[in-house]
Amino acid sequence: MEYNISSKLADMKPSAIREIFKSLVDPSIIAFAAGNPAPESFPKEDMARISAKVFTDEAVKALQYSITEGYPALREDVVSRLKTKFGIGRDFDSTIIVSGGQQGLELACKTMCDEGDVVISENPSFIGALNAYRSCGARLVGVPMDDGGMDTVKLEEALKANPNAKLIYTIPTFHNPAGITMGLERRREIYRLAKKYGVLILEDNPYGELRFAGKEIPTIKSMDEDGIVIYCGSFSKVLSAGMRLGFVCAPAPVVSKMVVAKQVEDVHSNAFFQILVDHYLRECDFDAHIADIRALYRRKSGIMLSELEKIKDTGIKFTRPEGGLFVWCTLPQGIALDDFVREAMSRKLAVVPGTAFNCDVSAPSDSFRITYSTPSEEQIIRGVEIIGESIKELSGK
Amino acid sequence: MEYNISSKLADMKPSAIREIFKSLVDPSIIAFAAGNPAPESFPKEDMARISAKVFTDEAVKALQYSITEGYPALREDVVSRLKTKFGIGRDFDSTIIVSGGQQGLELACKTMCDEGDVVISENPSFIGALNAYRSCGARLVGVPMDDGGMDTVKLEEALKANPNAKLIYTIPTFHNPAGITMGLERRREIYRLAKKYGVLILEDNPYGELRFAGKEIPTIKSMDEDGIVIYCGSFSKVLSAGMRLGFVCAPAPVVSKMVVAKQVEDVHSNAFFQILVDHYLRECDFDAHIADIRALYRRKSGIMLSELEKIKDTGIKFTRPEGGLFVWCTLPQGIALDDFVREAMSRKLAVVPGTAFNCDVSAPSDSFRITYSTPSEEQIIRGVEIIGESIKELSGK
Repeated sequence: MEYNISSKLADMKPSAIREIFKSLVDPSIIAFAAGNPAPESFPKEDMARISAKVFTDEAVKALQYSITEGYPALREDVVSRLKTKFGIGRDFDSTIIVSGGQQGLELACKTMCDEGDVVISENPSFIGALNAYRSCGARLVGVPMDDGGMDTVKLEEALKANPNAKLIYTIPTFHNPAGITMGLERRREIYRLAKKYGVLILEDNPYGELRFAGKEIPTIKSMDEDGIVIYCGSFSKVLSAGMRLGFVCAPAPVVSKMVVAKQVEDVHSNAFFQILVDHYLRECDFDAHIADIRALYRRKSGIMLSELEKIKDTGIKFTRPEGGLFVWCTLPQGIALDDFVREAMSRKLAVVPGTAFNCDVSAPSDSFRITYSTPSEEQIIRGVEIIGESIKELSGK
Repeated sequence: MEYNISSKLADMKPSAIREIFKSLVDPSIIAFAAGNPAPESFPKEDMARISAKVFTDEAVKALQYSITEGYPALREDVVSRLKTKFGIGRDFDSTIIVSGGQQGLELACKTMCDEGDVVISENPSFIGALNAYRSCGARLVGVPMDDGGMDTVKLEEALKANPNAKLIYTIPTFHNPAGITMGLERRREIYRLAKKYGVLILEDNPYGELRFAGKEIPTIKSMDEDGIVIYCGSFSKVLSAGMRLGFVCAPAPVVSKMVVAKQVEDVHSNAFFQILVDHYLRECDFDAHIADIRALYRRKSGIMLSELEKIKDTGIKFTRPEGGLFVWCTLPQGIALDDFVREAMSRKLAVVPGTAFNCDVSAPSDSFRITYSTPSEEQIIRGVEIIGESIKELSGK
């Protein structure tokens, strides 16, 4: 039997990262590839205690159908935290709980884009988001970045060239995969251009709480006086990725359609964990927990960056993230990415090739993404050594 | 600011049922409207015990990112149960864990239908499914039912008239909302027609375990020698609706594209509850638990049906379900559905108007759906009284 798959999905492949993740069952492989948060970032004792309490006091509510918008008390927590800590949320905004930041991005695109409409994105960018937009039939237009984030001159060119652009997708803080943080002026300029061209900004901020160096920079959403920013956040990197909970704060007319779109996808997000997280946020010291995660990533990123310094003679270039999970490495000229990835894997190191993050899937790349999040300190040291050895092997040095 | 919502979602309204559900905060209202399983159907003591154990033994795995296909041990449980209890699953099939049956339906349509393609469905049918298909841009073609299920003569007419039909959507067992169970010969005929016209069947079976009267009838999927049936099941009515877990068994090429589509929607379903359910299925007596739920619904449906008998003089007609959660009532001629729903609500009874389940949203209805699942026995008795009083009031008797 031949199956006629829908045209939007027919050519889509599973995310390279998810596939690599599946291959990581071999414990001898050093996994610089996954985007998983460090296991230490899950407050599992607190969650276990609260979980027992929810089963005792609120089991039926936690196990029964709930409303699509999200558990009301959790929505209140999110609204309050976004407002007080990040200056996010105005009278025209509304908030929805989603099944991880991933669902927020997909719903935003499904809500705003017809087939053939354009999503303008930093290039490279988060593969999960790019695939979500592709699955909605949106066309991706990539804008390059420099050290300060998305190139706004190129962004304006893209806006001019694509009158059917509906969203500007950006990860301004601790960019995945590029590890870059966009400066304040650049954020203001993107906001100005979005307003000028009547295009909404989709600001993805899953790592925003994980700053371990440099100064806080206001989110684009915090500047949103005109109701043109859809803001997407997540609990995956600060409480648990496996529970699948995130949130979107956006103008109410957009959120109300996202609710309709979510209803047909999964009715609502896991009710038990929504209640559990509400209790966690009210009863535990979330900020102290985040401070611990920041300290952990400060230490581990520091080790990775100092090890990378030691192999600079290979010609490798790399970003110096101020937060988040990722370092973006660029190979010296003359070394093919495929050869490098294969060589590293033969030495038991898994990295993500930069091609996976390209808006144009057929475009080449000379870069790869690595993480300090889940590997041990010994693995970080050995993994960076393997990067050095692999480059040397391939450059014939 | 005016927001240009995508054309597929612009006209879509939130599900009438979900909206009614939100209005049911008033405890004085008798809720015949919700599709919620009885709270007694959640094995909360077992789940609490297993949850504590998962936090002790497997917390990191349960709180970390997992794979899109689903927790491998749970997939094995599902494959094995489907095979041994229902004769479902052949070599060409594969299984995916989804975030509730709702996601299975939505992914199936997204995977198989381009915009404008046709989904043929029993009319009326489950509103969540119909809205999911609408959100994919599919066009719905409704086929009427009689007491034996979907009218297969009309089905063949629909197949002939719609060469771009991609799916035949059916709930053969304990239909929602109609409460009808399709006989074996009718199931075989639908299978024969699907094969003849090269259209896949999407068999939705969320209530299949809940038979409390009559004899088991094989699922259509159990007849699937040709790889033309996508089978969708759920844990919502037998373990917990709030955890959002279901499963799909379908030909591997279809499932592999559903995996891609799911990846961009929510990466994977709640990992903690996937592990919890795996333990439950291995360590607890699931069949004994299901027998308890069947006994509960046997008793409650019996009360509702015998109360309905008492108001037969009003001219009301109703189905006699052999399982599931719903009774479908048809008003006597001359009473407008809107008037009835309003009258019942003024007497503190909420029902779902049949219009909510129509493939054609502008089509009229003279029927409404009620459930015996969540109301107490006293509420069932009083609720049916209100139905009788409302009809009498409106018919001027």
